[in-house]
Amino acid sequence: MEEALLTSSAAGVYVICPTPFESDGRVDVASTDRMVEAYLKAGATGLTILGIMGEAPKLAADEALSFARQVIATVAGRVPIIVGVSAAGFAAMSGLSSKVMDAGAAGVMIAPPSTLKTDDQIVSYYADAVEAIGADVPWVIQDYPLTTNVVMTPKVIMRIIEQSPSCVMLKHEDWPGLDKITTLRRASDAGQARRVSILCGNGGMFLPFEMERGADGAMTGYAYPEMLVGVVNLINQGKRKEAHDLFDRHLPLVRYETQPGVGLAVRKYVLKRRGIIASDTLRKPGPKLSPETIAEIEWLMERIERS
Amino acid sequence: MEEALLTSSAAGVYVICPTPFESDGRVDVASTDRMVEAYLKAGATGLTILGIMGEAPKLAADEALSFARQVIATVAGRVPIIVGVSAAGFAAMSGLSSKVMDAGAAGVMIAPPSTLKTDDQIVSYYADAVEAIGADVPWVIQDYPLTTNVVMTPKVIMRIIEQSPSCVMLKHEDWPGLDKITTLRRASDAGQARRVSILCGNGGMFLPFEMERGADGAMTGYAYPEMLVGVVNLINQGKRKEAHDLFDRHLPLVRYETQPGVGLAVRKYVLKRRGIIASDTLRKPGPKLSPETIAEIEWLMERIERS
Amino acid sequence: MEEALLTSSAAGVYVICPTPFESDGRVDVASTDRMVEAYLKAGATGLTILGIMGEAPKLAADEALSFARQVIATVAGRVPIIVGVSAAGFAAMSGLSSKVMDAGAAGVMIAPPSTLKTDDQIVSYYADAVEAIGADVPWVIQDYPLTTNVVMTPKVIMRIIEQSPSCVMLKHEDWPGLDKITTLRRASDAGQARRVSILCGNGGMFLPFEMERGADGAMTGYAYPEMLVGVVNLINQGKRKEAHDLFDRHLPLVRYETQPGVGLAVRKYVLKRRGIIASDTLRKPGPKLSPETIAEIEWLMERIERS
Amino acid sequence: MEEALLTSSAAGVYVICPTPFESDGRVDVASTDRMVEAYLKAGATGLTILGIMGEAPKLAADEALSFARQVIATVAGRVPIIVGVSAAGFAAMSGLSSKVMDAGAAGVMIAPPSTLKTDDQIVSYYADAVEAIGADVPWVIQDYPLTTNVVMTPKVIMRIIEQSPSCVMLKHEDWPGLDKITTLRRASDAGQARRVSILCGNGGMFLPFEMERGADGAMTGYAYPEMLVGVVNLINQGKRKEAHDLFDRHLPLVRYETQPGVGLAVRKYVLKRRGIIASDTLRKPGPKLSPETIAEIEWLMERIERS
Repeated sequence: MEEALLTSSAAGVYVICPTPFESDGRVDVASTDRMVEAYLKAGATGLTILGIMGEAPKLAADEALSFARQVIATVAGRVPIIVGVSAAGFAAMSGLSSKVMDAGAAGVMIAPPSTLKTDDQIVSYYADAVEAIGADVPWVIQDYPLTTNVVMTPKVIMRIIEQSPSCVMLKHEDWPGLDKITTLRRASDAGQARRVSILCGNGGMFLPFEMERGADGAMTGYAYPEMLVGVVNLINQGKRKEAHDLFDRHLPLVRYETQPGVGLAVRKYVLKRRGIIASDTLRKPGPKLSPETIAEIEWLMERIERS
Repeated sequence: MEEALLTSSAAGVYVICPTPFESDGRVDVASTDRMVEAYLKAGATGLTILGIMGEAPKLAADEALSFARQVIATVAGRVPIIVGVSAAGFAAMSGLSSKVMDAGAAGVMIAPPSTLKTDDQIVSYYADAVEAIGADVPWVIQDYPLTTNVVMTPKVIMRIIEQSPSCVMLKHEDWPGLDKITTLRRASDAGQARRVSILCGNGGMFLPFEMERGADGAMTGYAYPEMLVGVVNLINQGKRKEAHDLFDRHLPLVRYETQPGVGLAVRKYVLKRRGIIASDTLRKPGPKLSPETIAEIEWLMERIERS
Repeated sequence: MEEALLTSSAAGVYVICPTPFESDGRVDVASTDRMVEAYLKAGATGLTILGIMGEAPKLAADEALSFARQVIATVAGRVPIIVGVSAAGFAAMSGLSSKVMDAGAAGVMIAPPSTLKTDDQIVSYYADAVEAIGADVPWVIQDYPLTTNVVMTPKVIMRIIEQSPSCVMLKHEDWPGLDKITTLRRASDAGQARRVSILCGNGGMFLPFEMERGADGAMTGYAYPEMLVGVVNLINQGKRKEAHDLFDRHLPLVRYETQPGVGLAVRKYVLKRRGIIASDTLRKPGPKLSPETIAEIEWLMERIERS
Repeated sequence: MEEALLTSSAAGVYVICPTPFESDGRVDVASTDRMVEAYLKAGATGLTILGIMGEAPKLAADEALSFARQVIATVAGRVPIIVGVSAAGFAAMSGLSSKVMDAGAAGVMIAPPSTLKTDDQIVSYYADAVEAIGADVPWVIQDYPLTTNVVMTPKVIMRIIEQSPSCVMLKHEDWPGLDKITTLRRASDAGQARRVSILCGNGGMFLPFEMERGADGAMTGYAYPEMLVGVVNLINQGKRKEAHDLFDRHLPLVRYETQPGVGLAVRKYVLKRRGIIASDTLRKPGPKLSPETIAEIEWLMERIERS
């Protein structure tokens, strides 16, 4: 398949896709298609699949590949697709990466393993990872210390970008992370570092400020992705107040959805309630929503939809 | 001094006090008094000092004690005062605890050290801690896994409450933590556990829901504590919508202030801007606010104060 | 294939097999066969493959399966084979487990993921794991906190054994861990817990004492497995002094081989020098032995072989 | 008091002193004197007190200071004394440091707090620490990742040495750590880094090799410190075989004593049995030796003393 590859000028909203399951745990093919169309309709400029919030580690290798192929086929080139290929070893990473790139993915995303401790270990890990996937595959650094326990300074990120011309994007979800964006942008503006795309994750909790600090957009999976698209567009149009107003209306649910562990269950519940996926099933191990939690989500949804 | 001791019926808002420093790093005595009065005026039903957000580990033993004595003297019995006595060892914990109780504190608060791993280790640590401070000193469990790395299940918390009659309160700041409140309240309602006060921390990020789940109030240090007081009162009055409306207006800043590490610097900046403390100095090691960060705080303050 | 299944009466020395690679990183089929024969000749009563020291996470799914099938075919029923099936998710675990059991493995081994924190989380994880592999597959708990960061108390281990009749063995490599063996054995002797086989890992660093505390043998991969076999046999024959004398002669190299990270490289070097495998290649990421390290290994080998 | 300050030419064996307690937990003054004399008689060229193995965090501030003063008075200038001043904050560190230096200590030792993650955080922490203790106080980097969770690359250590002329020693206890010594020595030999003293900890587990890699001696607390002295001297005299023979006779107990947590209890038991301290009491939280453990220690002592 002839697809465009991911470049460092990527911008907008790359929606992090959950993997929809049927209530018995099988991948839900029909919901997958419906979800993809819903995200495109919401204004997604790209999709990211098989990430941490896509329950990628819970899929068998062949399930992951089938899911990726289906999404790529459904999107049919309308937007670029990034595939998470983080793995416990380079053989698995390399295998998945080459298969999804062959299938038409635009690039891959790699999070560091939690065993990395020092700056040099991180830089060296990414050198090995690039060797594993091949220097011609565009790829994204996932910087998510809350989950990975790996803290990357701006200097480390710049060393990785420097050593690997195929690194085209930073998925930024450090916390706190706003000054990191400023530092990276200042460095690329001053010609001290190559400029890569910065898309922000972390549930979107700081999206308006992240845009103002120099991010190019969002890569996260909030259950109303049209809000993310709206905020990115408003900021790009210089409508600061409107961007924050829109964002703040959603912040109560954004906050609720970024609770570690339970957040994905919340997101899937909202997507189900919005008719986007058929079931909010998570594979084990995963939390079950209590009746109290469901009532709180309903309350939050109602307040958003009324406003 | 004759002061009332903390009991399990404590409720309302116990404001977590930062320790004000002058710009050269000395404890700022005048700001301390002004801050205490401001918190009482805002409706605090208690104060908590020398906690993690009070930079307690950065104070020398004599500084900590002087600060505690000053706050206790200023409050002069108007509300109970809880003193954080978490320490690397029981000798230091015991020493500080007995001195502040003698000085008129209502109780002490103890966070678990990050070395604890198993359920039994946690329970046993608290047994030793109670032996160290004495069984007659009312005390608070601080359950804050994001910082301590110690995860306490409801079952473990109930074992601690069961083994120590002098444990009168849970400072709840697990994340996610709403179902934990429900579980603990259901157990005490069913007579399976002693009922202790539950005050919620975590910057107040979930306060209205926490109240609805059965918490008795907040113990956190948001820079507009009158909002915390308002939310607690509104929920207690059954005014759910008004409580959420008030809370949601502040949520953008609450979220900004709960950024790990930089959050305390944000809080001190707002307190300075509100005229409550003279300087936003943190002792080392601590972050410095960038100009961009300050501009964002100003933006958030303006939106709150306008609304 | 009709093979005997692993039972709780397993004893002796189950050698942890490294995965031999050619210098270009491919699995070395010829060395695999030679290694298997060498281990059987050394007196192994079982083999364990695809464990942490087998670089299992660095193998692609099909490589892992091929390797397992080859070892099973080579052994041809002479001793039971345990296959490590620890995985980031239950789909992968289940897939590998059913394939190797079909191929003739005697049982599987499961280490807990480092995300588990509380007692209940650990117990619950193993319930889910057993559901994933099927209740008819005999399996081994791997208790290795130094690597997994998961600390299991004896009580937790007994809960897991209690909830899963198909759990037949504990691979014990807690550190310190001697009293844990005593506690578990005392409980099973007193009828408070089902007796499972306990084989000890951790490089064999405490093997004679572990045997004396009630272990049934070793499951580790020291490069002179005949020493492990000798110690186990001598202890079983009541020859305490001879057992310790034999062990102590090897302890300098045992200690050298249990250095985290570099230990496997040391082990592979010794196996290569002894003619058991052709190359000491590790897959990335993995350490390279310095000339100084090699000289130290040679010194230690010489002292052992001279004694 | 006029005492010599610690310099980068320090060598030999600095014995890590436990803090002797009476059975009721008070500091045991008489045992302290006896222990100091025993260590000097064993050939110690220095003493280190109030380290991790000195249960320093379990002492109240005044107890720690009294203990330090007593040891300094007893030693009376015969050898230099290093005092551990690691603390949760710089105020406490600075206070203890200035008091013990006034009392006649030769230098202080500082371990990094477990919250440090990146290279720059570590380097910056030590800059702040030096500011806290004063640039005129000679000090020691404690590099002990197994306990601190902070991994320092050779590059980071060299940056710390470079930025602080008062840093005169590395207490090396990384694991694995032999190549780190070689790297640091190669750098100082090549003039790329200032040469500081390297004394090795980690219970002495690799002492002969560490000496051969370029260390200047040991700083650890094995209960037969005369062995450490012997090994250091033999290596310095070029008697490699004799050094290893001596070391290997003790290795079974060295290994037993380096078990995390229980190791200090083992060490105190042996010191008590050797008549050096009166009680093997540890302050809480601390392990209790089981009868089986005591029998094993006795077995190991007997084998050493017979040989």
